[in-house]
Amino acid sequence: MGELSPLFTPDRVAVVGATERPGSVGRALVENLVADFEGEVVPVNPNADEVCGLEVVDGVGGTGADLVVVAVPAPVVLDVVREAGEAGIRNVVVISAGFAEAGGEGAGRERELAALAEEYELNLVGPNCLGIISTPVGLNATFAPRSAPSGTISFLSQSGAFVTAVLDWAADHGVGFKDVVSLGNKAVLDEADFVDSWGDDEGTDVIVGYLESIEDGRRFVDVARAVTRETPVVVVKSGRTEAGAQAASSHTGAMAGRDRAYEAGLREAGVIRADTVQDLFDAARVLAGQPVPETDGVAVVTNAGGPGVMATDAVGEEPLSLAEFGSDTLDRLRERLPEGANVYNPVDVIGDADNERMRAAVDAVLDDDAVGAAVVIAAPTATIDYGDLAADVADLQAHHDLPVTTCLMGGERARQADDVLDEAGIPNYFDPARAVGSLGTLSRYRDVRDRDLPEPTTYDVDREAARDVLERASDRGTNRLGVEAMSLLDAYGIPTPAGEVVDSPVDALDVAERIGDRVVMKIVSPDILHKSDIGGVKVGVPREEVYDAFEDLVARARNYQPDATILGVQVQEMVEMESGVETIVGTNRDPQFGPLVLFGLGGIFVEVMEDTAVRIAPLAESEARTMLDDIKAAPLLSGARGRDPVDKAAVAETLGRLAQLVTDFPAILELDVNPLVARPDGVQAVDLRLTVDPDNL
Amino acid sequence: MGELSPLFTPDRVAVVGATERPGSVGRALVENLVADFEGEVVPVNPNADEVCGLEVVDGVGGTGADLVVVAVPAPVVLDVVREAGEAGIRNVVVISAGFAEAGGEGAGRERELAALAEEYELNLVGPNCLGIISTPVGLNATFAPRSAPSGTISFLSQSGAFVTAVLDWAADHGVGFKDVVSLGNKAVLDEADFVDSWGDDEGTDVIVGYLESIEDGRRFVDVARAVTRETPVVVVKSGRTEAGAQAASSHTGAMAGRDRAYEAGLREAGVIRADTVQDLFDAARVLAGQPVPETDGVAVVTNAGGPGVMATDAVGEEPLSLAEFGSDTLDRLRERLPEGANVYNPVDVIGDADNERMRAAVDAVLDDDAVGAAVVIAAPTATIDYGDLAADVADLQAHHDLPVTTCLMGGERARQADDVLDEAGIPNYFDPARAVGSLGTLSRYRDVRDRDLPEPTTYDVDREAARDVLERASDRGTNRLGVEAMSLLDAYGIPTPAGEVVDSPVDALDVAERIGDRVVMKIVSPDILHKSDIGGVKVGVPREEVYDAFEDLVARARNYQPDATILGVQVQEMVEMESGVETIVGTNRDPQFGPLVLFGLGGIFVEVMEDTAVRIAPLAESEARTMLDDIKAAPLLSGARGRDPVDKAAVAETLGRLAQLVTDFPAILELDVNPLVARPDGVQAVDLRLTVDPDNL
Repeated sequence: MGELSPLFTPDRVAVVGATERPGSVGRALVENLVADFEGEVVPVNPNADEVCGLEVVDGVGGTGADLVVVAVPAPVVLDVVREAGEAGIRNVVVISAGFAEAGGEGAGRERELAALAEEYELNLVGPNCLGIISTPVGLNATFAPRSAPSGTISFLSQSGAFVTAVLDWAADHGVGFKDVVSLGNKAVLDEADFVDSWGDDEGTDVIVGYLESIEDGRRFVDVARAVTRETPVVVVKSGRTEAGAQAASSHTGAMAGRDRAYEAGLREAGVIRADTVQDLFDAARVLAGQPVPETDGVAVVTNAGGPGVMATDAVGEEPLSLAEFGSDTLDRLRERLPEGANVYNPVDVIGDADNERMRAAVDAVLDDDAVGAAVVIAAPTATIDYGDLAADVADLQAHHDLPVTTCLMGGERARQADDVLDEAGIPNYFDPARAVGSLGTLSRYRDVRDRDLPEPTTYDVDREAARDVLERASDRGTNRLGVEAMSLLDAYGIPTPAGEVVDSPVDALDVAERIGDRVVMKIVSPDILHKSDIGGVKVGVPREEVYDAFEDLVARARNYQPDATILGVQVQEMVEMESGVETIVGTNRDPQFGPLVLFGLGGIFVEVMEDTAVRIAPLAESEARTMLDDIKAAPLLSGARGRDPVDKAAVAETLGRLAQLVTDFPAILELDVNPLVARPDGVQAVDLRLTVDPDNL
Repeated sequence: MGELSPLFTPDRVAVVGATERPGSVGRALVENLVADFEGEVVPVNPNADEVCGLEVVDGVGGTGADLVVVAVPAPVVLDVVREAGEAGIRNVVVISAGFAEAGGEGAGRERELAALAEEYELNLVGPNCLGIISTPVGLNATFAPRSAPSGTISFLSQSGAFVTAVLDWAADHGVGFKDVVSLGNKAVLDEADFVDSWGDDEGTDVIVGYLESIEDGRRFVDVARAVTRETPVVVVKSGRTEAGAQAASSHTGAMAGRDRAYEAGLREAGVIRADTVQDLFDAARVLAGQPVPETDGVAVVTNAGGPGVMATDAVGEEPLSLAEFGSDTLDRLRERLPEGANVYNPVDVIGDADNERMRAAVDAVLDDDAVGAAVVIAAPTATIDYGDLAADVADLQAHHDLPVTTCLMGGERARQADDVLDEAGIPNYFDPARAVGSLGTLSRYRDVRDRDLPEPTTYDVDREAARDVLERASDRGTNRLGVEAMSLLDAYGIPTPAGEVVDSPVDALDVAERIGDRVVMKIVSPDILHKSDIGGVKVGVPREEVYDAFEDLVARARNYQPDATILGVQVQEMVEMESGVETIVGTNRDPQFGPLVLFGLGGIFVEVMEDTAVRIAPLAESEARTMLDDIKAAPLLSGARGRDPVDKAAVAETLGRLAQLVTDFPAILELDVNPLVARPDGVQAVDLRLTVDPDNL
């Protein structure tokens, strides 16, 4: 049982704001509770005697309830909740609107509500919500027109209306629920709390959510990472596109974080993200009903060639492959199938197949070691009975304990099979692609369940030296730093070319003599962002020209902007680019998820093609390593076109060290190493830009 | 009426192979025909007297039928068809299997069948098919267990089983058909014939197809290009993925062409391609039921915030935008909606809205000029009646004559609305994304309908000179050509750097003196494919080194491969690459669609990122121009990162000229210009490789 189980298993529920008035929320709540609840229901209303035949109590304090549902006007809510708290009631659902979503004084009222919840240690749902449901005890503490069919999916939603829609739809579609929560404004309990609690709940096989925002991204990730090892979590996070995000924030008053951060956060959390409502419940049904496959090999058995080809196409779009049958299986199939049938995958038992032939083929492929899952497809023929086929498939699925989905195509015909398949938890679709897609979901979840969850890698760094660099910048009163802060990277063990920022031509020569025959020289000024554009970068300067080059660079800068702050000139080792790939590593901060780390290839790849990988910091080095494979241009790092592969371990280590840097220093708002040159023998950070918040040091 | 309308409007249908035997195809055919057909049905069977109460005729010759359906064993089919032809029957449907799909003698039998069809000018469907349906005259000449509900979609399918599945499903889902054809082996009539005929058929609003292959790609494109100007065509072409293509070819014996060629061909044809069965019928329903929008602005009206956000997300994924309402609309909405409602798009009428408020909002947004289409969303609340809402939406849709889709969320509740919405042709989905996706389909079709269809551009070229180059190569007995064939490009007006292939150091010097201070020199040998790898390319050779360079290049080639054929050394002008972008233009041939033209950026973009655009040849230059925008790296051509944009017109012209070249010379199997350097002031083809088929000259 999860920590929040008391919310879902009360013995006595008080409804404050209960009333006889037809069409009112208060009446709907009492009616819904009375309908199936195993415990007692106590209406509370100082101005009524009886509601739905139940005696009404004056105040919540005298109810002896262990859950109170509040549906009174917003200005009265705080008093009711305080009274409940005083009476020792710990579980509160606030249905009433008129809080943060209403703006103005509503926001203040919501803060007071949260404070009360803290004072009395309340499990508080809402405000501005539809309520909660828990089917095992028949609890329907919502004002929805319909309760939930029972099952093993627990469902949270930031939209109450979406809950009513799903409940109405679910009964028809073989989808059943354990607990349902309308989160409302999430003043106290949020998605992380319920995911955490349901993760420990034996009655919950799958957690499904509709979210417009995540309150505390970092906490959600930490909670969900643990839960998803045993219980799949599938979420629609809306506000995916820019227009959608705008609509979402105008809707509940919660800022929708930028989508890349959500993507990185949900990935790290092991949450399966669905793009649409259909995908959400397709995923929920299969995860609730079917086991997880051990291998990605799929067998397709069909009595019709065309739909078999469609299924095969869909296999190619999922993280699945067509299983290659062993010779035993092929022999078995040859024995049972007539000439003209195809014993190879997709198995075509052909149109005149009867139930027995179909059963034999499904049984044979499920026996094959290469098969992790199967899709059974049928077109309606005179020789196939869908009801019997459904029973056979359910039987074989249970016997082999492998995941199976079906595509028994048709309308009225297919409905003959629905009950049997629903009962067996086998999703059935008209479209072969959806039946295959559901198996893809199972494979994705298996990868989440089985993944390593290493702790963030901690590197040996010189934190004090880094702090010095940032404080010196802060003392100068600037918040934009460039190559003058390269020692920040040195302090965190990220390789940089030899070099120094100097403020006289003599010093420049001095440094150049230590470094090599030719050097790179760059003007260093927080006021000049695009150094190249003003001729502020000189590459391959020979020793004899270093002195003049210094003066020329300074003159150019002065000429470009007479009042620019000039910190000096950087004299840097020439970096061998020939064998290298220019990459970009960077960090920024998300309001929900905190520091993020970004990786991509330099030049057009990040800027034009937007080909980047993003993770939340801090990072395990093994996770950093996956960023290199996530970009489309990944082959360029592996030695495409006859080149040597770059040192990927060094790139991953750099990402890990950067992640540690931004985690250690919240003052670093944004940081770009561009380029980080990756060569077969290591990496070098050639240029640097960062923005710091001096107040946060 | 289309050319094939006689097939679908017979007065008298003969069924050869009619029988009383229960469960037989011959009996099912007669039963289906007798059920609803307005004309006469004549069973033919020399060994029976009566079938289904109808008198049986001995031979097809004496039936006086104008359509004959043949369901006799394969060996007898040819005789029956000949008899029908002799009797002047022009319309024949061959149900029988045992032709090309069976291999062996079946293939010969199918050729004979096609020859008979030609001899007697038959409209012949099949063999190996389910039959045909035409609902206006109640014709069901199939052995499917269920006929088609009537409507305005005409449907062709390469899979008979898929037809039976769709028919069974359609009745439940508001999908109705005009004509249905199971194509079978397509011995005579194929997809192009039916698309062509239905394009002229007033009863057909949408053409829908399931195809595993297209027989004659070029003809299909020509036919469909014309049809799609007035009638939308939506197709699932399966065998999309490699595994699927394999399954498809093992299934019907028709080779599935490579998918990129299909993509290019269907695009050129104006066919909307659906990836899945669900997408296919979603597209069919909306195209059959709703008008096409004039603008891409969509209005969303909802009584629930969450689903509104989901719809808005979906708008971002389609070629649509959220309409920005005019001030009149905003005023009207403010007047009718309560505080807390959102008058901006997506319009949220909030949860307590009644039908009247919803209607007012939908009416207001449909009046706005910026709105091309609308999605109406409702969650089930106590204040909304779905039946009335459906009637209001249908009424407003008809009044404003703009496309509308709905998302009345729920199960039982939503069914109250189904009949009204089906009647009005308004698709209704539980998932907001599907309701929006359907509007996206309408916008896509509008773009097809309204597009320019220019003729292929014809350039002034020197065809004889090009032929000379190819014939010279053929005389040399080689089929792989390189830079020695650069004059092929010259002949077709594609700019090349100055240069010549020479066979002595003296000539090399001679050419170099004419060309410039420094030249590029390359070994020319059909046996050496990767010149650079053996040091066979020298860049920036100064005049004084040209003589020695010649000898060195030849020596390297000999050393690498003593028996290599060496055609000489190319001495070429140095090409200014600095301001240019390296592109690749190429051509190859597809068995179904003929010559294809490919465009991409040089280096990793084509080879690693597979970022290419493909079209079928010949090409209108305006169409070639769209290839430049189709690649992901398109911004690089438009002056990304502070560079000048390249001369896109010159690139497009090059593509057009190449398309003309490969159309003129079927002997050119493959050709690659790599790189074609594109600069702000034009293009230059720097290197060339091609493969020719000398027998085809």
